[in-house]
Amino acid sequence: MKLHNFNLSSASYRVRIALELKGLAYEYVSYVLRRGDQRSDGFLKLNPQGLVPALELDGGTVLAQSAAIIEYLDEAHPNPPLLPKKPLARARVRAIAQAICCDIHPLNNLRVLKYLSNELALPDEVRDRWYHHWITVGFEGLEKQLAGEPETGRFCHGDTPGLADICLVPQVTNARRFNVDLASFPTIRRIDEACMALPAFTAAAPENQPEAKA
Amino acid sequence: MKLHNFNLSSASYRVRIALELKGLAYEYVSYVLRRGDQRSDGFLKLNPQGLVPALELDGGTVLAQSAAIIEYLDEAHPNPPLLPKKPLARARVRAIAQAICCDIHPLNNLRVLKYLSNELALPDEVRDRWYHHWITVGFEGLEKQLAGEPETGRFCHGDTPGLADICLVPQVTNARRFNVDLASFPTIRRIDEACMALPAFTAAAPENQPEAKA
Repeated sequence: MKLHNFNLSSASYRVRIALELKGLAYEYVSYVLRRGDQRSDGFLKLNPQGLVPALELDGGTVLAQSAAIIEYLDEAHPNPPLLPKKPLARARVRAIAQAICCDIHPLNNLRVLKYLSNELALPDEVRDRWYHHWITVGFEGLEKQLAGEPETGRFCHGDTPGLADICLVPQVTNARRFNVDLASFPTIRRIDEACMALPAFTAAAPENQPEAKA
Repeated sequence: MKLHNFNLSSASYRVRIALELKGLAYEYVSYVLRRGDQRSDGFLKLNPQGLVPALELDGGTVLAQSAAIIEYLDEAHPNPPLLPKKPLARARVRAIAQAICCDIHPLNNLRVLKYLSNELALPDEVRDRWYHHWITVGFEGLEKQLAGEPETGRFCHGDTPGLADICLVPQVTNARRFNVDLASFPTIRRIDEACMALPAFTAAAPENQPEAKA
């Protein structure tokens, strides 16, 4: 398998964690997003959506979209599971994941920040306020949910890491990189810390990828 | 079941289509988003994320996030299926859905447009250009994928409607409402038309909900 990805892309980071939790080996193919590698003709042939991550399977099939890739990995390599078995529990885990993947991260990824700076010519401090705003609003809802629901355990759902944690940790990493104040989110910080105590999460972290060591 | 939703919310529209395709009856609870109904204390108790749709099951459990709700409905009520059986096919359908739910829609929903107008004080034409930009970029990738892949049939994946179509149609509806030029997206328009020939899609459409008739 080849993972087409970038160390600082948080959607890429999600897939790396899933691959590490599953114990699956992969070849790392790097795309420097600021340079626009993901819009090259070669990559657009692999993934017309022009976004990383994309997972190229040994048979040549290319899968796009981080959460779709992670669900595929869970179906094709069921152990250890990244989603619980029961439909209601699965729905809860997916809803936490989507609160991040659909309601926080898309507003703050690089192409959006570039549009704010370049097309809208907004000053850096306005762009940064935008960034903080969407993380803070999103984390407020998530913190309430995680702190208030009995299904929350050491991790987002019970005592084993799964899809929700895989999405949460890269979002916390992004928040820290942009100096978002996380003081009001003790449950999120506690779960992030529990995850970062696991080798799969640290092995997948941006600072431990080839680009950071180059 | 009670669906907490709003007729013009495209994430709500997705869940309504799924319920119609499954033939499941539900009570319609309306939240006027412009009035901020979804931030009321009553609704925040049901869904701390403060976003519609939310599906309240007869047992009282509340499910959030449209794609999580739809996958739940598909697991709890398997017929007719909204996802194919094979992992690779499921991954393709989910990736198309997520290209819309994660990369197009979140940038253009009401709370974001309000932020552009109110917090950033951007003129309406700049806000509208933003709106058009993200749909156009997203649809360009999707059109290439749908037109180029043999799995595309009468619908996004083969000849039965499913999760990808459920996400595509409300996004096309939004695009039309904001006068986005769809001339370059013949495959998307063809699939939208095939869907709108089905009673489930029309029954779920914004113009056929209580708010539009009030």
